[in-house]
Amino acid sequence: MDIFTTIKERRSCRKFLSDPVSEDAIEKILNAAVWAPSAANNQPWEFIVVTNNDIKKNIFSESEKCKKVLYEKSGWKWVDRYQVGFLEEAPVIIVVIGDPKKTGADMFLEGGGLAYQHACAAATQNMLLAAYALGLGTLWFTLFDKATMRKIFSIDAEKEPLALICLGKPATAFNPPPRKDVKEVTVYLR
Amino acid sequence: MDIFTTIKERRSCRKFLSDPVSEDAIEKILNAAVWAPSAANNQPWEFIVVTNNDIKKNIFSESEKCKKVLYEKSGWKWVDRYQVGFLEEAPVIIVVIGDPKKTGADMFLEGGGLAYQHACAAATQNMLLAAYALGLGTLWFTLFDKATMRKIFSIDAEKEPLALICLGKPATAFNPPPRKDVKEVTVYLR
Repeated sequence: MDIFTTIKERRSCRKFLSDPVSEDAIEKILNAAVWAPSAANNQPWEFIVVTNNDIKKNIFSESEKCKKVLYEKSGWKWVDRYQVGFLEEAPVIIVVIGDPKKTGADMFLEGGGLAYQHACAAATQNMLLAAYALGLGTLWFTLFDKATMRKIFSIDAEKEPLALICLGKPATAFNPPPRKDVKEVTVYLR
Repeated sequence: MDIFTTIKERRSCRKFLSDPVSEDAIEKILNAAVWAPSAANNQPWEFIVVTNNDIKKNIFSESEKCKKVLYEKSGWKWVDRYQVGFLEEAPVIIVVIGDPKKTGADMFLEGGGLAYQHACAAATQNMLLAAYALGLGTLWFTLFDKATMRKIFSIDAEKEPLALICLGKPATAFNPPPRKDVKEVTVYLR
């Protein structure tokens, strides 16, 4: 599939079929991740591929708790309504973990020290695109408590669980949400 | 070009030809950017497309100053040796600006409030891939002083200049830096 089509047509998936994802597809997706660029080629990412149902159920129930806290703090109604069943339904969850020690010279700059997160986000985007090209749906989920995820996955205190990527065959086709026109967000300095 | 090939073969470019980049190519690249996913579809990005030589020279000389500060702070020899001439040589620089107000519910989480930066990083990765598919080289540059960039581009104090994307025809072909094997950075929980 052409890259412009992949980028434009790829959309978030919230309903997954239970069909397992092949090992081959998972490997292709992870390979796409590690070809993302990173500051000084530090490759600040690690991945945990979860197919275990008990662990997925645990992630789901912890995320339900987190959602309640978020709703109390934000008062945002969509948070209350947001259904996170995809966390137990998706056949695969890929946990993306970043290592702050592997950021670049940006650590010495104002608002810096986050290049490792940018690299992990680029790796995540590569995975979403690769998955879509393989006919798979993905959801980039971040509304979890980091301390809880560290506990579930025995992640070192100094590393950051940055995203849960739900992955599987999409149960429904749906359209991507609209985007503002490029003109609205771009200025030219000629 | 197939997406897996694009993802794997795309590499950073540090030497650019002076040939201008067509308006059409720039639009395709920006369109790829805005199809990145973002928390709650907040689309927290803005772009400044710089082709003006005086502004590029200014970015270059300010980045040279920033590099000196970084070298003093870090003591890292590669920072001293790092040549940033691409900042004036690249025919186009795209400034990526993020709006922290457009992050998602992550703002209520530990270590949160950065989803807008992740979305901008995903948009950046889309631009790098799109550019490569168009035969163009890119460099994702972040070693600049944010306050200085805010001044040069009259960016509001509450918005964040996150990256300078240098863009143009590559002057030299070169191989991507090596990556660790996926197996070294992945754990499976079955």
